[in-house]
Formats: sequence, C-alpha cells, structure tokens
Amino acid sequence: MTIPQSVSWENHTIRLLDQRKLPHVTEYLTLGTVESVFEAIKSLAVRGAPAIGIAAAFGVALSALTCKTEDVHELKEQVFMDSGYLSQSRPTAVNLFWALNRMNEVVVRSNTAQSLRENVLAEALTIQKEDAEVCRSIGEHALTLFQNGDRVMTICNAGSIATAKYGTALAPFFLAKERGIHLSVFACETRPVFQGARLTTWELMQADIDVTLITDSMAAHTMKMKQISAVITGADRIAANGDSANKIGTFGLAVLAKSFGIPFYIAAPLSTFDLDTPNGDAIPIEERDPSEITHVNGVNIAPDGVNVFNPAFDVAPADLITGIVTEKGIIKPDKASIAALFA
Amino acid sequence: MTIPQSVSWENHTIRLLDQRKLPHVTEYLTLGTVESVFEAIKSLAVRGAPAIGIAAAFGVALSALTCKTEDVHELKEQVFMDSGYLSQSRPTAVNLFWALNRMNEVVVRSNTAQSLRENVLAEALTIQKEDAEVCRSIGEHALTLFQNGDRVMTICNAGSIATAKYGTALAPFFLAKERGIHLSVFACETRPVFQGARLTTWELMQADIDVTLITDSMAAHTMKMKQISAVITGADRIAANGDSANKIGTFGLAVLAKSFGIPFYIAAPLSTFDLDTPNGDAIPIEERDPSEITHVNGVNIAPDGVNVFNPAFDVAPADLITGIVTEKGIIKPDKASIAALFA
Repeated sequence: MTIPQSVSWENHTIRLLDQRKLPHVTEYLTLGTVESVFEAIKSLAVRGAPAIGIAAAFGVALSALTCKTEDVHELKEQVFMDSGYLSQSRPTAVNLFWALNRMNEVVVRSNTAQSLRENVLAEALTIQKEDAEVCRSIGEHALTLFQNGDRVMTICNAGSIATAKYGTALAPFFLAKERGIHLSVFACETRPVFQGARLTTWELMQADIDVTLITDSMAAHTMKMKQISAVITGADRIAANGDSANKIGTFGLAVLAKSFGIPFYIAAPLSTFDLDTPNGDAIPIEERDPSEITHVNGVNIAPDGVNVFNPAFDVAPADLITGIVTEKGIIKPDKASIAALFA
Repeated sequence: MTIPQSVSWENHTIRLLDQRKLPHVTEYLTLGTVESVFEAIKSLAVRGAPAIGIAAAFGVALSALTCKTEDVHELKEQVFMDSGYLSQSRPTAVNLFWALNRMNEVVVRSNTAQSLRENVLAEALTIQKEDAEVCRSIGEHALTLFQNGDRVMTICNAGSIATAKYGTALAPFFLAKERGIHLSVFACETRPVFQGARLTTWELMQADIDVTLITDSMAAHTMKMKQISAVITGADRIAANGDSANKIGTFGLAVLAKSFGIPFYIAAPLSTFDLDTPNGDAIPIEERDPSEITHVNGVNIAPDGVNVFNPAFDVAPADLITGIVTEKGIIKPDKASIAALFA
C-alpha cells in the first residue's frame, strides 16, 4: 500500500510533493536551497499546517548544511537569518512558527558548527517522526469508531500529504487498509478550492482505498441514500469549550449528521487546541478573495461584479460533535474533558 | 427594472435568450424554423420546464405559419409532424409534452388553414401569458412571507428565465423590487452545473436586486452569520404528501433551515404537483454523468477514474417544509391540504 508523503529528506535535499499539480501530475520537487523552500511554501506547493512546519524545519537544516563556515557564531547568524526569512513565507501559519522556534532553540544550544549541523538535521527529522507518530496514534483511536463495511464522509484534505504521514481525519482509513478492514469514504469536493476533489480522492486512490467523490451539495442526499455511518473531519483550531473551526462546509455536515443521528467526529492533534480561545465565536474567520468562488481554473463562472461572501472556515459547535479524536485518545468536546487532556 | 425573459414572439419569429452563454454574453437567438427551435431546446439554449414548453408552443406556431398550403388537411398533417418532431427534443420534459398536446388540440379544432394559423399563435401566446400570470401570482403570495430588510437564501434558478416571466422562487424578489421593498438574496452556486452562480445572480443583477453569491458549502455559516430569515426554492415534482423533489442541495438546505429555526418554502405552480406519486421515496432520482462533477469548463479537477455519485435532485421531506407557495395561495405540505387544492 502506498501512503503518499508530502515531505522527505533524501540525499541532503528535501523531496517535496508538488501539491499544486495534483491530481493529474505526481511530481516531486528537489529543494537544495533555503530560497527554494521559501518559494515552495509561499506558492502552496506544500500545504497542510504540519507539512508546512516540517518543510520549514528541513529548510533550516538546509541552511546549516549549505553554509560552509566553520565559525559557529557566523553559522548561527546565517541560520537565524534564514529561519527569519522562512517565517515570512506564510505569515499566518502557526505550525510554521512553532517548527522554526523549535529549530532555533536547537541552534542556540549548539556549540560547534559541526554539532549545529548534526543537531538541526536530527531535530527536523524528529519533528517529522513525531508528527507521523501523532497521526498514526490518531488513526488508531479513530479506527475504534468504525466497523468493517462502514461508509464514512469527510471534507477537505486532513490527509497524509497535509502532515508527515497518515493525516488526521484520513489516518484511520490507511490503518484499516493495512489490516484488511473495508471502509468506504465519501469525499465532499470542498468548494471553493476543491481540496476534496483534487487531494483526498487522489491520496486515498494511491492506497487503493474505496473513495467516492460528491459535491458538497450532495451531502444530505448521500447520507440518506448511501447509509453513511459517520462523518470525520480535521480541524484548524479547537477552542477551550470544544467548538472546532475547520474548512467551510464542516458546520453544515455537523448539522446534517445530527439530523440523521450519525456521529460526527473531529480528528486533530493536541497542537490544534487553543485554550486561550474560550469558544467558537472568538475564532476569527478569514474571508478570502471572491475570485476563489467566481473563477474555476481561471475561467469566470459568475457575472462580473457580483457580490460574493467567501468565508474560508466555519465552526462546528461542540454540541454537534460526538467526539474529538486526539493522539491521546477520544474525548468529549467539553471544557472539562479538554482541560483534563492538558492537565 | 429589467426582468429578463427567456422566450418572446417578435416579428413572426421566436426571440430566445441563449442561456448557454450566460452570464458573460447576453445574446438572443432569432428562430424562424421548427428545426431551429428543436435545436435550441435540445442544446439547452432554453432551459426551465415552463420556458421549454413555451418555446415548443411557439415552435408549433412557426410550423403553421411557415407551411404555405391553404389545404387545411395538408396543413394539419405538417403541423402534427412538426409537433411530434419537437416532442423528441427533450424526451423527459413533462411541460414540453403538455404544451404540445395543448397545441395539438387547437390544431384539431381548426377548420380552415387561416383559422388554424390564427388559433395556434393565439394559443401559444395564451400559454405564455398564463404562465406569467401563474408566476406573478406565486410571487404575490410569496411576498407576504417576507419583510423589508429580510435576507433570503435560494438554490438553483427557479427564475424568470426558466418560465414565461418572474419565475417561481425568484418571483417575490422582482415584485418586492417593483414596490421598493428591500430584500437581499443569497444565491447558492448550485454545483455541479452552477445554475445559481451563472443564472440566478445574473437574472437578479439585471433587475438591480441585491444578490450575494456563496458556495453550497457556505449555507450553514451564512445562515448563522448573515441572519438569513428564510429559504425559498422551486420544485421539480411535489408528491401527494408534500415531499418535494428539487435540485440537489435542496434537502440539505431544508435540514439546515429547520436546525436554525428558519422557515423553508417551496414555490411552485399546481402543474408541479403529481398526485399519483404518494411520497418522495416514489420519485425517481436521475443520476447524471460523472463528468459534470469531475470537469469544470472542460478541465478535469479530479483524478482520472475516480468513483463519482452524481444525483441531480434530492427530496425535501414534507416535515421540513414550512409552506408551499402556489398560484392559489400558500398551503401546508400535507396530503389533506394538497388534495383540497385540487378539489
């Protein structure tokens, strides 16, 4: 079984899946310079918060390995400069800053140029390995929620290529496949950017997992006619009370699932929780360019000058969420359970 | 205020809005032959059941007016042949058969070539006028459901260009505009074929009505954030118990509306009711070509060979429908109320 990976370290370079070209062209970029990593992140060749963080961490490793000085102070200066540069590639990506900070701490601790080079590469590999372990653990817990033959709906791409490996919401499907458990996935196309149609279908098809594409508008009819057993999605931010922000369309799926008496699960690592955000109303919702809706593949499908409302995310309120699947287990979406998770 | 019209009779020809070119090009075809009417219907230059029926009726008038014989029997033969030919243009369009049957009855009744020509043109104009009156009446009743300042959501295009004039679900917005009542419309784009993005936005913008385009996946978030006051959609078929089949996505909107405590209305003429269909489960749901989902403007957005589920319609169950707006008034969606409507 092939589980596609977005980022890997090979022969002193970063091998990066170019997600812009999916699903028609499977092309891996070879990144040997910090500049090329910056460009890959900025131009969305790599997407998904954990995958971006991992790419940036390897970018710092590249910085240290390609800078030829043996003066540790000079090397630190160069690496910090490159790290600062990489932090500008996607200004709102929390995982990017988190990964770069972690790399910077390793740089600070290193006393020789050689040890610095060894330490940053080791740290980047550790970040990647930890994320894969977190995702695999989420997958293990999520898999306990499903039975052989279940039909499960998802939206967007909370998949392997958005993380180190396995993904979050898609992780149980890879593990099920490994174990001969048959699960059918119904992937909502995820307008406006089509992450479901472009990425989730492609990724699951690589692993020969049964996946069916529908438009977002078909969710209700599909739940009824195909006897969907559960909905599982990723999350971009989970508030202290369990309200979960995720790709636009998630809130609607949560309402539909409740109406059909189907469980609705969020799958996300502990790093997605934001205990400083009391509830969903406090989560800012980014509104993006109208052209994402009015144009498809560069072709305008709507009248010129039409008013557009284009929120990128919505919030599934805690009372519509059956459980949140984390690497530490499945919890109820309430303040006490979330606080206990971090205690 | 401009209310776009799909079909009109001008200078012995049919003036037909080419809906395939909307929203970017507003082009009217001039149809002077039965063959050109057949092609226009078959190639979807005209769409919407009532508009198709009206175009076909004028096609029969064209047949009679362009056939130069003064022998009434010869003329009837030619007109019946052309009518049979037109009935093949969209084999599943009920309104097409209904309009052609009505025209055929007029042909049968005519005793001279001259009276036949007069009668068929008069009948076609009557079919058009009656449909405009029905739509206007639906609009009048629907308008009583809304208050100045309301924000109303719709899906697909149950609009003026799908009928003689005014449309069904969109009729109240034209009447409100005439009377200076401000209503804001939120149009779901209506994947996979984008009738909302392409047609509803265009049509309402022609009349300077406040319309905002969203993707179907944004319905839940928009209902909450924009304080949507009501949802109104058309219907393709209404069963004897009030279950209503309409464009895919309608069922989901009905579930969301219920969850938000927002009224959900169906607007449709009496001709949409099918008392021989006991309930929604008995309504066959057409599944269409996967390429409608996988391709946009001819460009493939999904992996080759992906499984697709592409139902064209879904059914809003009667218990989620607040009321059905007809030309005879607003009724409750239950068997007794519907039976009374036809008594």
